[in-house]
Amino acid sequence: MNFASDNTAPMHPRVLEALARANDGAAMPYGNDPLAQAVEKKIAGIFERDCAVFLVSTGTAANALAIAACCPPWGAVYCHPEAHVDDDECGAPEFYTGGAKLVGVEGPHGKIAAKDLDAALDEAGKGVVHHVQPAVLSLTNATEAGTVYAPAETAALAAVARRHGLKVHVDGARFANALVGLGCTPAEASWKAGVDILSFGGTKNGCMAAEAIVVFDRMLAETLAFRRKRAGHLFSKMRFLAAQMDAYLEDGLWLDLARNANAAARRLAEGLSALPGASVVHPVEANEVFVDLPEPAIAATEKAGYRSYRWLGPGTQRLRLVSAWSSRMEDVEGFIRVARSGLA
Amino acid sequence: MNFASDNTAPMHPRVLEALARANDGAAMPYGNDPLAQAVEKKIAGIFERDCAVFLVSTGTAANALAIAACCPPWGAVYCHPEAHVDDDECGAPEFYTGGAKLVGVEGPHGKIAAKDLDAALDEAGKGVVHHVQPAVLSLTNATEAGTVYAPAETAALAAVARRHGLKVHVDGARFANALVGLGCTPAEASWKAGVDILSFGGTKNGCMAAEAIVVFDRMLAETLAFRRKRAGHLFSKMRFLAAQMDAYLEDGLWLDLARNANAAARRLAEGLSALPGASVVHPVEANEVFVDLPEPAIAATEKAGYRSYRWLGPGTQRLRLVSAWSSRMEDVEGFIRVARSGLA
Amino acid sequence: MNFASDNTAPMHPRVLEALARANDGAAMPYGNDPLAQAVEKKIAGIFERDCAVFLVSTGTAANALAIAACCPPWGAVYCHPEAHVDDDECGAPEFYTGGAKLVGVEGPHGKIAAKDLDAALDEAGKGVVHHVQPAVLSLTNATEAGTVYAPAETAALAAVARRHGLKVHVDGARFANALVGLGCTPAEASWKAGVDILSFGGTKNGCMAAEAIVVFDRMLAETLAFRRKRAGHLFSKMRFLAAQMDAYLEDGLWLDLARNANAAARRLAEGLSALPGASVVHPVEANEVFVDLPEPAIAATEKAGYRSYRWLGPGTQRLRLVSAWSSRMEDVEGFIRVARSGLA
Amino acid sequence: MNFASDNTAPMHPRVLEALARANDGAAMPYGNDPLAQAVEKKIAGIFERDCAVFLVSTGTAANALAIAACCPPWGAVYCHPEAHVDDDECGAPEFYTGGAKLVGVEGPHGKIAAKDLDAALDEAGKGVVHHVQPAVLSLTNATEAGTVYAPAETAALAAVARRHGLKVHVDGARFANALVGLGCTPAEASWKAGVDILSFGGTKNGCMAAEAIVVFDRMLAETLAFRRKRAGHLFSKMRFLAAQMDAYLEDGLWLDLARNANAAARRLAEGLSALPGASVVHPVEANEVFVDLPEPAIAATEKAGYRSYRWLGPGTQRLRLVSAWSSRMEDVEGFIRVARSGLA
Repeated sequence: MNFASDNTAPMHPRVLEALARANDGAAMPYGNDPLAQAVEKKIAGIFERDCAVFLVSTGTAANALAIAACCPPWGAVYCHPEAHVDDDECGAPEFYTGGAKLVGVEGPHGKIAAKDLDAALDEAGKGVVHHVQPAVLSLTNATEAGTVYAPAETAALAAVARRHGLKVHVDGARFANALVGLGCTPAEASWKAGVDILSFGGTKNGCMAAEAIVVFDRMLAETLAFRRKRAGHLFSKMRFLAAQMDAYLEDGLWLDLARNANAAARRLAEGLSALPGASVVHPVEANEVFVDLPEPAIAATEKAGYRSYRWLGPGTQRLRLVSAWSSRMEDVEGFIRVARSGLA
Repeated sequence: MNFASDNTAPMHPRVLEALARANDGAAMPYGNDPLAQAVEKKIAGIFERDCAVFLVSTGTAANALAIAACCPPWGAVYCHPEAHVDDDECGAPEFYTGGAKLVGVEGPHGKIAAKDLDAALDEAGKGVVHHVQPAVLSLTNATEAGTVYAPAETAALAAVARRHGLKVHVDGARFANALVGLGCTPAEASWKAGVDILSFGGTKNGCMAAEAIVVFDRMLAETLAFRRKRAGHLFSKMRFLAAQMDAYLEDGLWLDLARNANAAARRLAEGLSALPGASVVHPVEANEVFVDLPEPAIAATEKAGYRSYRWLGPGTQRLRLVSAWSSRMEDVEGFIRVARSGLA
Repeated sequence: MNFASDNTAPMHPRVLEALARANDGAAMPYGNDPLAQAVEKKIAGIFERDCAVFLVSTGTAANALAIAACCPPWGAVYCHPEAHVDDDECGAPEFYTGGAKLVGVEGPHGKIAAKDLDAALDEAGKGVVHHVQPAVLSLTNATEAGTVYAPAETAALAAVARRHGLKVHVDGARFANALVGLGCTPAEASWKAGVDILSFGGTKNGCMAAEAIVVFDRMLAETLAFRRKRAGHLFSKMRFLAAQMDAYLEDGLWLDLARNANAAARRLAEGLSALPGASVVHPVEANEVFVDLPEPAIAATEKAGYRSYRWLGPGTQRLRLVSAWSSRMEDVEGFIRVARSGLA
Repeated sequence: MNFASDNTAPMHPRVLEALARANDGAAMPYGNDPLAQAVEKKIAGIFERDCAVFLVSTGTAANALAIAACCPPWGAVYCHPEAHVDDDECGAPEFYTGGAKLVGVEGPHGKIAAKDLDAALDEAGKGVVHHVQPAVLSLTNATEAGTVYAPAETAALAAVARRHGLKVHVDGARFANALVGLGCTPAEASWKAGVDILSFGGTKNGCMAAEAIVVFDRMLAETLAFRRKRAGHLFSKMRFLAAQMDAYLEDGLWLDLARNANAAARRLAEGLSALPGASVVHPVEANEVFVDLPEPAIAATEKAGYRSYRWLGPGTQRLRLVSAWSSRMEDVEGFIRVARSGLA
């Protein structure tokens, strides 16, 4: 009954089983065990190409390390103003880059339009010593608004970025949800669309604490091993990061879990939008629903013990509902029913 | 049969069980769950006083965050030249502090003597703008040489540090091993001896990946919540860090595990020192043995599948043997027997 | 005939004479000479109170050091989006702070309104670990738009800042021009209005390369001596920075020079605004004029050898004209005359 | 009568005259004036090859920027433990690199031996993620001990550095004194001997505040323009840095000035070493003399108003005497005479 965040979900039982399985005797530390090495290959297989993989335990670490690998201290990172990297990581990209600047490019529904990026880069003062230098485009897919970038949209943005000399990063904390929403392959949503480096999330979608930095541009990987260690993100008992990711990816578990989450969000949106006075704010393309609801509807759900997030602050009527791999359809229906009852 | 590092050990079954227990439905993220809050209280209880606690997943993160909380960018951190923070963390303290300098104070058996620290601080140029400013004393207990600082030794060093205006940090990646070796309480080896902030290790001694920064000087805690988040070390599913630490500390498990490791090291030292041509390099006071052995003894163990670490490089005859919570006495005896057989 | 920037002006002859006078035999380095110490007292006298003074050679250094003294690495600096610190210093504040974030607060004519600052700070997430923490308000006076903050305006903004726990910095690269424009005292425009730390400019207004960081909140001064040295901004032959500032301040030279610059700007604005099709963009309150002019007027001035700055890029018709201490009224009249002739 | 430091000297009259000459009307800022561009060519001419030149105002800035251009945040800078960059810059290299580590290589008379560097690099753990990575060799020439590296010595060290993948930096705050002491050309002491980047000092030897970063490896120059601006070391009125350097280099003034300083040091060493109980500590090869003297000799000079530096602290009998371009032979003889009289 918790729709406050997909971070509130437990890990999937198969992930826990994998931890237990990996907990068998001694193993070489720091990624020198067979499982860690196998997971890198498994990820390469899923992305249908050679790539470098760096496992870490949080999305903020994955994003900050990935961006730092692409961006000098005097670089500028172009992103949506609501991007997690700009708004919710307490300045992690600035810390890891040594003081880069995040530059917001506005756009509806949490998305940047290629022409707006192009215009922003045209007036960025490239090569002029007084200005920070455009270095990275960071997209979030699925976005903080619960929408997705289709491969063609990513490709158009990446083409602009590349023309201006930027690298392309995707914050894929909810990459599985994006893929399921789009119905495309991991490759189509990443390197085939021009993405150089990806934060590939596992934590929100069924892992305990596991993310992978997937590097398609091998040049960008050179510094990452040192950056990760220096940041304290190289696990000694790496097998336990690897085990999570291994189970997560096995037999398409990760996509099955995202399918459940997305279906729950879709049903929430459908059910809530039918209520009098309700208005869904952004297209529901992944596992988040932003919806304006009359106060009695909200109050009823809160009273019944459902958790959600009043997005614009206490007392406001815009809810963010996030579904997870573990969301049960009975809770979804229950939320809708109770909200409706509040309006009666 | 792996004595290469205590990092090669698995997690203790009770830690794994705790993960499974914590994996029950939704929980508020980022430390706002009951278990995370209970663990902070449990640690305070073990240390017999109020303290602030910050859970992280690696020892490097704990050390670098703790040091950064005490040290300005132009600060100097005094430590033994073999200290992990200086030698094995790829510059993590430098990164987290924004460019502080680590200053080595030599001493036998991995330990700093109070008078040597005093002499070093006397000539440090305090208040002189051309020099980095002494800010932190970082001790490792148990040390990288497998020795320990007795409470009186820590207190003497801390008194010197305090007189010169430094804060005192202890890298306690093997704090349990030190306590068992010393036969003293956590409080006696830390704040009662003048320690301001402690990296309290769990990973090497039975956890999967869990360390606690324990802050006795509350003033030093003010920045740590922001530093941890900004570094990507705040887990969203914090309950799983908390669960590890909770099980680790329950019913004195942590000390039992360290007792096993220390006993194994003691027996290794005893058995090996009896071999002709063998020489134990440092007093064996925790769970590490440094021993010079004739090549045939080493070769025999390696051939038999025992793993250890040729400390001075390939082909050299100084071994580091690290025992762990999981070391079995039969492997200890086996190592000694095989080494002896190599000399026959 | 150069109105491109006040940076193009030479130093005032009395500043040069002061350099020659100071060039007399040996002097103790790093600010331990009598002149350096006298200048600190002279500045305190001008500001009518005790303050700490740090001389540096560039405005970027003064700003970045001053901001870093007030702002942790996870801090946020609130400023106008057109502020020099955000837009023209290649990320110097980010570098010096170790990765702080500059947050723009929009407002017409280069100025922030107190209510807009208040609203921005209300939604900044103070105390929430996911967000950078508001730490500094940085105002520019005179602004990049050539306008000024009256003492009451500064005081209103500072009151908001203080209520939210921020320190107040003023970038006074053109502080003399602001004072002359306002007709108020240095004290009234700074600490009496709630300013904690000021970048007090000399370079643009008659010095060679000399700025002073003036610190009214003594607590903020503690780290600055180390920060300045560590950044390479402590001159060994400090007497030559001091000599410039000493001559600049002697007998009110600095205000006389600013009066000349401001008068030239006022006359430019007056003369140009009378031209058909001309439109002055911002109130002309210091030594900058932003004016939209018909292309033939601009072209005529460029052809005649006058330098100005096409503010919105090559081929656009918005000019920025900056007058300086050295601007001659005959060039001002000449510019107006030629512009008018271009329209004939 | 001041032998405390060459920093106490004034600027040479021809440097002052050049400032006056450059103070003529408007000039484009930030290095876009003709003089700045001419100086770059002049320096290239002196070094007999194409190179990139970045003028700054302090030696600390030159060193820190040059090192940062060669060194990642996780890099290690190898230098003598007494090197200015390690000991007297308050951590500037650490700040500018984002947290690199300075690693001392001991050697007599302030110099590193090639075999000791080689040994240190052999055990540095290159490629191992736990250790900072060797990135730069920083030599000081002339050294802090007043000795010099001959071109063959520099070449031998640079060959070791290059074999291990390091860049070679020279801190040439007293480069002119080194050249005069060696009797070699600028090229022979720098790029012909394998130096990649040089801090070319002017301040101590007759300038007011002017140093040049001379970059022989063009790849290293790419980031320096941004680094310099971002650090606040790009002068707006750059012509005044250029004018100093231009006069300094014109007609071999710089070498003439160094000749005077070196001759004064030689004579000081000769005269003082003849005193009973006196002992010169390091070979006097540039403009510094380290000499152990009986207390009465020292006391006599201090009483007579001569300034020198008790190197090992107040009350100790090791003096550092630094001669400058402006040292007069009568003061040199006076110092010797008074010291001798103290022993009578």
